[in-house]
Amino acid sequence: MLKTLKLITSNEGKLREMQHYLGPELQKIGVQLDKLPLELVEIQGTSDEIIKDKLIRASEVGDFPVVCEDTSLCFYSWNGLPGPYIKHFKEAVGIEGLVNMLQQFSDKSARAECRIGIKVPGKEPIIFTGTCEGSIVSPRGQNLFGWDPIFQPRGFDQTFAEMPMDTKNTISHRGNAMKLVLDYFQANPNWIS
Amino acid sequence: MLKTLKLITSNEGKLREMQHYLGPELQKIGVQLDKLPLELVEIQGTSDEIIKDKLIRASEVGDFPVVCEDTSLCFYSWNGLPGPYIKHFKEAVGIEGLVNMLQQFSDKSARAECRIGIKVPGKEPIIFTGTCEGSIVSPRGQNLFGWDPIFQPRGFDQTFAEMPMDTKNTISHRGNAMKLVLDYFQANPNWIS
Repeated sequence: MLKTLKLITSNEGKLREMQHYLGPELQKIGVQLDKLPLELVEIQGTSDEIIKDKLIRASEVGDFPVVCEDTSLCFYSWNGLPGPYIKHFKEAVGIEGLVNMLQQFSDKSARAECRIGIKVPGKEPIIFTGTCEGSIVSPRGQNLFGWDPIFQPRGFDQTFAEMPMDTKNTISHRGNAMKLVLDYFQANPNWIS
Repeated sequence: MLKTLKLITSNEGKLREMQHYLGPELQKIGVQLDKLPLELVEIQGTSDEIIKDKLIRASEVGDFPVVCEDTSLCFYSWNGLPGPYIKHFKEAVGIEGLVNMLQQFSDKSARAECRIGIKVPGKEPIIFTGTCEGSIVSPRGQNLFGWDPIFQPRGFDQTFAEMPMDTKNTISHRGNAMKLVLDYFQANPNWIS
């Protein structure tokens, strides 16, 4: 029987994406992904503190392994902010507003971060951090997901929103975080049993 | 015997300030302020959600009335942000950085907000919000408290940091919040008994 790992999210798309990339490999080692639709308040703090806190509270819900995902966008000129608060900023001012906010700073470089945290009952949480270096540019591209149109990864002349999805997933912060999770599962196949 | 209202803070200065302004009036109605040095994590959310959450968790510590204070700085061009996240932003980029962040936006107006929330055992929390309208300017003034040097209240040609403390307290968001608390106590002298 497959062991179940529950993704804490109320977002069906997030489950589908993670199932698409991790699902087949996880099945090989006897693990299936499912969703636990739990709305957890996030604390203020560093990205690591935020996801650790979510994992610990999520794991209090039941006696099963849980997985959480969290994304940050860190401007170097802003010493790492908006970081975990990027969703509030994007909601408040839109992606054009984010570009404007950086206009006065000569350094437009930014780091996208994706954290996937897993907590197995009775064990400490483990956090996998995938990053992607890049810079903030005026919006370009058709895919209007999140802040993809204003993030141009280093070494590319397209924004995330202009790239084919497969290219993006190969280099993106989320793709890199998922690779780390897979590597860990493959090295530790009995981890969640 | 005086009833005690516990201010949740690890900041001795905050207690002194509140005692200075509220203490004498509260004593007249049989209430004294004391400190409960409790470090409470803050959640992400609106300023009202954040202080309400803090009050509820603080009130779980003991069977006594508690008071929390929280300050926000809301840029109109940013649709209210950084708001409750202002402390993280000031820490990350300093007050000059905050001025730079607004440089590209023509509207430099801002609203300073101070919330004082009180929770009496068995009763719903009450939140008093004092505000002060103004605008963000290049740093001026000697008093380097918080973001005082870059906040110029509407109708004045001095920043908070250039004003005599008494003038500032008459018009400031914190002064206005404390006035609301006093008015409420005076109208409801048996509120916390």
